[in-house]
Amino acid sequence: MDLAQENAPAGARNVRLVVAYNGTRYHGWQRQAEGVSTVQQCIEAAAGRVLGHPVSVAGAGRTDAGVHALGQVANLRTTNLSIPLANFRRALNSKLPDDIAALSSAQAGEDFHASRSAIGKTYRYRIHLGPAKPVMFADQVWHCRAALDLERMGAAARRVVGRHDFRGFAYAAESRENTVRTVTRCEVAECGDEVRIFVAGDGFLYKMVRNIVGTLVEIARGRWGPEQIDVIVSTRDRGYAGPTALPGGLCLMSVDYPPAAAGG
Amino acid sequence: MDLAQENAPAGARNVRLVVAYNGTRYHGWQRQAEGVSTVQQCIEAAAGRVLGHPVSVAGAGRTDAGVHALGQVANLRTTNLSIPLANFRRALNSKLPDDIAALSSAQAGEDFHASRSAIGKTYRYRIHLGPAKPVMFADQVWHCRAALDLERMGAAARRVVGRHDFRGFAYAAESRENTVRTVTRCEVAECGDEVRIFVAGDGFLYKMVRNIVGTLVEIARGRWGPEQIDVIVSTRDRGYAGPTALPGGLCLMSVDYPPAAAGG
Repeated sequence: MDLAQENAPAGARNVRLVVAYNGTRYHGWQRQAEGVSTVQQCIEAAAGRVLGHPVSVAGAGRTDAGVHALGQVANLRTTNLSIPLANFRRALNSKLPDDIAALSSAQAGEDFHASRSAIGKTYRYRIHLGPAKPVMFADQVWHCRAALDLERMGAAARRVVGRHDFRGFAYAAESRENTVRTVTRCEVAECGDEVRIFVAGDGFLYKMVRNIVGTLVEIARGRWGPEQIDVIVSTRDRGYAGPTALPGGLCLMSVDYPPAAAGG
Repeated sequence: MDLAQENAPAGARNVRLVVAYNGTRYHGWQRQAEGVSTVQQCIEAAAGRVLGHPVSVAGAGRTDAGVHALGQVANLRTTNLSIPLANFRRALNSKLPDDIAALSSAQAGEDFHASRSAIGKTYRYRIHLGPAKPVMFADQVWHCRAALDLERMGAAARRVVGRHDFRGFAYAAESRENTVRTVTRCEVAECGDEVRIFVAGDGFLYKMVRNIVGTLVEIARGRWGPEQIDVIVSTRDRGYAGPTALPGGLCLMSVDYPPAAAGG
């Protein structure tokens, strides 16, 4: 997938982008077959038009269809050294659709890779409470009509934090051998008629955040106690976790890198 | 269009609905040919399924394609008297798509008609300022990259208020004879990195609000002084007004009725 990146000629510049997008119209981040619209393809097409050569863009997180990002990080290599990077951001935006934006573009170190260099990611999940349907942002929240006990939800969230084997929270067919990850933050915040769940960690398994959220909601509804989290961790069994929360509520907020990797 | 309403049998109940919708996916409010999705058709289909008979729904404002509503009012007549109206709202919502919601349903007087009984409407127009593209609500704002002088815009807005001939702000092919309307409020409010323009009045010509907004933006950008409003009113010439603002920024906020018409 990153062939164009690996084979970039000597002297190519490594450019780091921060991008935001509304994922509603896209089949996720990841490049797919012709005719399927993805965020990565849109950015590669726009960057290619600006730079005048084919471009391969690597993203930090492979967000699923319908998932959003306010702080996705990507990098690309270009042999066109004539464009000042501040202008590049603006030129890129003018070629991107309204629901994808480049927030910044900067020179990165030779070895910087948006995905491989990342040491942490933060996600936010929005749950809309209350009876009124959120028609103006239905694609950005999970509308939950059940009464949620937020104290209970917060207690369960605190049990998610730590270095655990998260296999029980992964996609059932998860194929990775090592399913141990460190969650550094799992926090429930009330915000008007919304509950926002922030989850940060050093890495995430496929569907892990949405399965954590689905489980927290079941606990907040009273189906299980907060200790269900420990059961899922210790048994490593997806069957003890809640349903996968809808993609629209999820947003990749930021990606962390070691200070040295980020610089140019 | 309102045949089914006019021919409702004696004993039919007149139901008043307040509805909200994101207009992005719809070709406006107004019923159109088969295969074209409109808000009115969606509500009529959902209400028909709930009530068990064909339903004609009349709306107060015929919002254009891409225009939103948070307080559209509609009415329908039903011969199915067995459904409590509070349940009707909930049943209707369960049959409506995520981007259309019934906010309330109540019995209205025999003569109540959402459009003909209306004595006023309030619209809001959202303009997004600043360099960052608003990817999460690109369909709900006009992203204006030019610097806007909001004091100048406010001064122009105050000149819009009053009883005037608004032909110069109407769609060029406006066919109505009487183009005199009373605007009771035209206000510019700063809200974070947004400007929100509120326009209220006893009635509006086709595209009138969007043409007022387009003109206010031209004035705020410095193309004209605030007195351009008076020029457009006195000449009744569309040629002196600004461009029609994009539909996505516009939202129908509320509809007013005389106290007697609203009750049941």
